[in-house]
Amino acid sequence: MEKKIITISREFGSGGRTIGRMVAERLGIPFYDKELVDQIATESGFAPKFVEENGEHSPGKSFFSYAFGVQGVPGVMNGLSTADFLWNIQCNVILELADKGPCVIVGRNADYILKDRDDALHTFIHASVPFKADRIVRLYGESEKSPEARLQEKDKRRSVNYQHYTGRTWGQAQNYDICLDSSTLGIQNCVDIIVEMARNAE
Amino acid sequence: MEKKIITISREFGSGGRTIGRMVAERLGIPFYDKELVDQIATESGFAPKFVEENGEHSPGKSFFSYAFGVQGVPGVMNGLSTADFLWNIQCNVILELADKGPCVIVGRNADYILKDRDDALHTFIHASVPFKADRIVRLYGESEKSPEARLQEKDKRRSVNYQHYTGRTWGQAQNYDICLDSSTLGIQNCVDIIVEMARNAE
Repeated sequence: MEKKIITISREFGSGGRTIGRMVAERLGIPFYDKELVDQIATESGFAPKFVEENGEHSPGKSFFSYAFGVQGVPGVMNGLSTADFLWNIQCNVILELADKGPCVIVGRNADYILKDRDDALHTFIHASVPFKADRIVRLYGESEKSPEARLQEKDKRRSVNYQHYTGRTWGQAQNYDICLDSSTLGIQNCVDIIVEMARNAE
Repeated sequence: MEKKIITISREFGSGGRTIGRMVAERLGIPFYDKELVDQIATESGFAPKFVEENGEHSPGKSFFSYAFGVQGVPGVMNGLSTADFLWNIQCNVILELADKGPCVIVGRNADYILKDRDDALHTFIHASVPFKADRIVRLYGESEKSPEARLQEKDKRRSVNYQHYTGRTWGQAQNYDICLDSSTLGIQNCVDIIVEMARNAE
């Protein structure tokens, strides 16, 4: 069966987003990453930057999660915590996008949200720490923290968020159709495998 | 870099062994599965059936693990438990086989044992429960237990054994170069991907 919806989950720095964009170009279908953030922002009323920071991460120290929920005062978010409110919007946007037609969706737990679609191909991209550390410094520059600490922090937050909302383990092979190590296989090979399977999976 | 050693870890019933045999045939290299068991048996002095039952499984109820160790009497196994003695032999046999030349090795935690080889391609094959249940009934026949219970029991033992000897989580994508769902991709596609990557991984 042809797989029309491709989800790409990825470790920070693994090149998953780049792979997703290249797959979308090869297949001639829309690529949702920043676009997804913008749409969730529009529907939720939050700023795009806020959605990007918190849509697939566990709350950071400064996150005002549960500011509404704990006071028990139903407001515009129907008494949901900020995080849960964002999750609901995110689910709806992703389900609607998938209904619209073939596409590549990066991150945001889309593999879980679309787990019941037979026409979806769920992928996970990971890589060795040196490969990822080198990539994030080249792409996003240096920062006060070591690249290794930045990798660990980002993926820890993604992992906790995934576990919380899906009850599954982030990066556990059984959650995906294909998991690839971009540092040992190469970015281009990862693209080729995903494109091939989007066209020819059973 | 060409990948000469291919390890195949697999869920029971996923078709991983079949995929391994087909990959070995396509690449024209040796396939080690039963052969591995026989060699470990020869070197350990245990019966092949015993090695097959316990070489990659956590001890079952009837397993006489630690029968030697707990008494503190160094014997032919130098005071090691039966399981640890078997693990040591298994590591040596697998390291020696990989040194001999290109091959496909199924199971027996070979991905961990050969994790430091740059020329190794580590794969994990998994599948949906209905796919696996159907396969084991067709291949191995019915038994008193339900197919689902047989699957769960076997993989639980493999998982515990892997965790014990490697400190890693069985089926966690980051432990392998490629993880594939044989029930959604199809056996033949899995073979094609692995053969292609054995020849063309970076």
